[in-house]
Order: sequence, then structure tokens, then C-alpha cells
Amino acid sequence: MRALWLEQQRLTLRDDVPQPALSGETVVRVLLAGICNTDIELTRGYYPFSGVPGHEFVGEVDGKRVVGEINASCGSCEPCRAGRRTHCDRRTVLGIIGRNGAFAQYLSLPAGNLHAVPDNVATEEAVFAEPLAAALEIQEQVKIGPEDRVLVLGDGKLGQLVAQTLALTGCRLVVVGHHRPKLKRLKLRGIDTAEVDAVEARRFDIAVECTGNPTGFALARKALRARGTLVMKSTYAGDLTFNASSLVVDEITLIGSRCGPLPRALDVLAARSIDVRGLIDQFYSLDEAIAAFEHAQRPGALKILIRA
Amino acid sequence: MRALWLEQQRLTLRDDVPQPALSGETVVRVLLAGICNTDIELTRGYYPFSGVPGHEFVGEVDGKRVVGEINASCGSCEPCRAGRRTHCDRRTVLGIIGRNGAFAQYLSLPAGNLHAVPDNVATEEAVFAEPLAAALEIQEQVKIGPEDRVLVLGDGKLGQLVAQTLALTGCRLVVVGHHRPKLKRLKLRGIDTAEVDAVEARRFDIAVECTGNPTGFALARKALRARGTLVMKSTYAGDLTFNASSLVVDEITLIGSRCGPLPRALDVLAARSIDVRGLIDQFYSLDEAIAAFEHAQRPGALKILIRA
Repeated sequence: MRALWLEQQRLTLRDDVPQPALSGETVVRVLLAGICNTDIELTRGYYPFSGVPGHEFVGEVDGKRVVGEINASCGSCEPCRAGRRTHCDRRTVLGIIGRNGAFAQYLSLPAGNLHAVPDNVATEEAVFAEPLAAALEIQEQVKIGPEDRVLVLGDGKLGQLVAQTLALTGCRLVVVGHHRPKLKRLKLRGIDTAEVDAVEARRFDIAVECTGNPTGFALARKALRARGTLVMKSTYAGDLTFNASSLVVDEITLIGSRCGPLPRALDVLAARSIDVRGLIDQFYSLDEAIAAFEHAQRPGALKILIRA
Repeated sequence: MRALWLEQQRLTLRDDVPQPALSGETVVRVLLAGICNTDIELTRGYYPFSGVPGHEFVGEVDGKRVVGEINASCGSCEPCRAGRRTHCDRRTVLGIIGRNGAFAQYLSLPAGNLHAVPDNVATEEAVFAEPLAAALEIQEQVKIGPEDRVLVLGDGKLGQLVAQTLALTGCRLVVVGHHRPKLKRLKLRGIDTAEVDAVEARRFDIAVECTGNPTGFALARKALRARGTLVMKSTYAGDLTFNASSLVVDEITLIGSRCGPLPRALDVLAARSIDVRGLIDQFYSLDEAIAAFEHAQRPGALKILIRA
């Protein structure tokens, strides 16, 4: 089959990738797939992955549209038995760890990983289910209510999804970013925004870091009140350095946040509570996948989608 | 009055320190004070404090023994109004920030900071109330029960108190340290111990870092399962560097932990649930305070106490 192939940090388009047919799994015909920052990080060596990248997708099985939980777990290791299946010791992860992904004509996942897309959710909306679930994971980890002052750092595609899902809690939300058009998009949805210089120190109960760079982390830390919570939603290239004593003195909580609840993401999309269509920059065909990756890396780019 | 004085990281014994008499506060005659690692860090420049150090004490007011909450708060700033008085924006901290401390004949604190020592608690036990409260703070921040596998890093005086308070939860506790006699002391109280090399990776639900050094932090991180919690109980000189992506991928929670509930510490002492007497290495008089500090910095030293 045709697929985008990553090897030694280089992308090529290939026609000779075997169609996946893993025993006991379901083969999914890919309809649409999205480029995530993690995919771009993979091309920069963030993780030594070789194969077909891509983990945000909508596909078709027996004429029905599906999205998929990207972590394939063993079901028998200790994390699985304790209900932490996304942290399975032996997991493979679609397009990220040990499993070919979604920038291809077909992919394969265990049947239990697949979720039907509700009829009123368009395919180009459903393709946001995976990153939207990741945004909703924050609310699985931290109790957030109308009294909480919450700062989101980053106005990119992840920050936009995180901000919209946080707005659903009724919290006192501010998004800080560098891109005026992106901040304006949030303002139009009634979300407060600020420029970096205007962020008040020691003012926020919760800060959500969606930039993936140390400057964003430092600003998040500075903005938090004592006993505040810093949610790390981005992957980072390299190490982070921080003042550990100030974390102790201020009794700050730092919490890493990864994949989230796909069924809840589909509910949010079906309820039309948030806007994802506005986050689409451009569609490409699978034949143009390399150009799509180039576009996704341009400053200011939002979501780039690839039709299989 | 006579007091130990810290200035530009140098300790001297002085007889000309004015007796504290802050308006609206209570003057306490000091009976006994303990040397904490934070005091030692102050002499190394951890914090630019000038004055009388010392924040672990038992004193006397009108013939009654008292211990004291070390944070003096304003009561009107936002953290105070929100109930986070130990994080008051304008706080002074006994012997640490803007307020003379306990290595003196007298100290002064707001009356509301003082707590009567129960009759069945000896003065040399009550002097542990402040660090014991700090150990109990962990249980205010993290829910810990009999099912939890908890690793304590560090067998020093803080680690010993932390381990004993955690043992009260019935959790599956292991303490790791370098000092055989200190580990043996814990074993005699029925607490499991391990050598550093024997700590299993990705095995613990909760790790409590009591060493204050990057090696301890790295081992704590390594020992945690995905979605585990790393409690940072020590102050650190300098910055810490960590792999931020692995924190995100494993959805680890890092939490800084400082001062805790003094009344609960007195309850624990009164109930004789833990042993603190065994942690005392030696008593010194205030005249010998400088020698006491030297002793406290010897490898393997436990609690050094100074009688005023």
C-alpha cells in the first residue's frame, strides 16, 4: 500500500509498505489524518521511531467511521490490571512506538481501541478526537471549577484545543501567546487572552504549558500562586532545568499529561461545544504528504490534514 | 540577651542581641531548639538571612510549655484570605525570613502561632513538633493508604520522621539510604529498608525525596510507576534538571512540600505513635551553639539540640 515512511529522521513516500494485518486486530481504511507536533518531533529525533508515522485519524471499517485509541495495551501487565492501560508496560503506540500509523491507506488496531464516530460529527471534525481527548485529560487529572484562575501558555493548535475544553468548566481563563490572529480566534469565542509581558506573577491557580519550550515553562511557573498546579501538556526536546527549592517553598504541583478519554472527546464534538473546523489550515492528499509536513512546520501553521 | 547570630554566612555568639518585643506578639522564653538542615543551608547561603537562626523550638510562656507555627502571616493578603496562611505574601518566618529565631534566650511570635505542649510529651520530644508537622504535610497533600507502595529516599533525620509518619498510614513502605545504623533503626521499628542498588525501577506509587540532592531525585523518579507521585520534601541548593518529556509521557506528578499541621504533630507525639527520642544525637548549651552546628554537619549526624 501507499504510505509515508519515516526512517533515520527522513520522510519518504512509499508504495511498497505491506498492508497491516495483525492477528486479532481490525484493519481500518484511513480516510483522514492530522499532523501533530509529536509527528514533527519524531522527524527531529525526539524518539527513535522507524515506520509509518501518524496517530490522529478517522477511518472506515465495514462502511462505518471510526476513530482510535492510539495505545495498544497487553491487558495483563500491572499497569493494565490497575486500569492504566495507556501506560501498559508492553504498549505499542500508533505511529509512535512499534506500530505503523495513520499516514497510509490502511492501519491496524485492536477492535477494542476503535470508537464509532457519531453521525452528526463530520470526518474533518472527528479527526480532532485524539488531540481533543489529550486536552480533556487535564480535567481527568486536576479538578477545575468556576473559581479557578487558569492560564494556558501557547496559542497553537494544542493551546487552542486546551483553551476551548477548559472554557467548558466555566473557569477564569486566560490564554497567552505570540500570534495575534490565533489570539483573536480565541477572543471571538469569548476567551480572554494576554500578551506575554502582561501575565501577572503569582496570580493563577493552574497553568497549562502547551508550548513545549523552556520559556513557556518558566512563565507558567512564574504565573502560579503558592500551592498552584502546573500541567505539562507538551512534549519537550531535551531536559528542563528548574529551581527545585522554590517549588518546595511554594508547594507547587507539576503534573505531566498525555493521552485522554476518546469517548468524552466524541461527546464534546457531538454536542458541538467547541469549534475545531476553524483550526484547519489546509488539506493535502497522501501523495502530497511531504509537502504537508513542510507546511505544518511553518510558523503560525495550525492543523494540517492528509486525506488517504 | 544571648543569641547565636548569622551574618554573611558566618555564625557568632552574641550577648547584645535585643530581646524581641514585637507589638501584639508573645515573648517566649526558649527552653530547647533543634538544628535543621535548613539552618545549615542558611550558613551556606541558601537564603540571604541575617539574624538569629533556629525555627524548631520548645519555649515557655507564663509557666506553660509551647511550640510555635513558624510562619507569621498578615491575615489579609489573598493567600491568607484563601486559607493558605503558611504562604502569606508578607510572611516572616522564624529564623529564616525577616524574623529572629530560636537559638536565643527569647523569641517572639504572634499568640495565635503558639500551641500548648501536652503534659505527657517531654520537652525533648516536643522539640520535634515542627519537623514532624512538615513530615505530616505529605499526608495533607497526597492520599496514602494501605495499598500504596511508598519509597522514602534518605535515612537522615527528615527521612526518619517521614518514614515513621508514613508507616502510620499502613502503606507498603521502603526506605532507601546509605547509612546502615540509620537503616537498622528503622528496621527495629518494623519498617522495610533497601540499599540504593536494590531499588526496583517503575515499582512505586509514591516516592518521597528527603535527601535534597539530585541523585536522590533521579532515583525517586526512576522508582516511580507511570502516574506516580514524587513528593519533594527537601530544600535544594541550586537547580535541578530533569527529562520533561518522560514526565509527560509517564504522567508523573511532582509536588513540593513544606510546613505542616502543628496540632496534628502534637497529637502524634501525645499518642506516642512514633519515636523521636532515638533521633537525638547530642545536647549542647547555647554557649556551645557553634560547636553544635559543627556536630550537626558531620556525616551521619542525627538531631542536635541546643538548650537555651
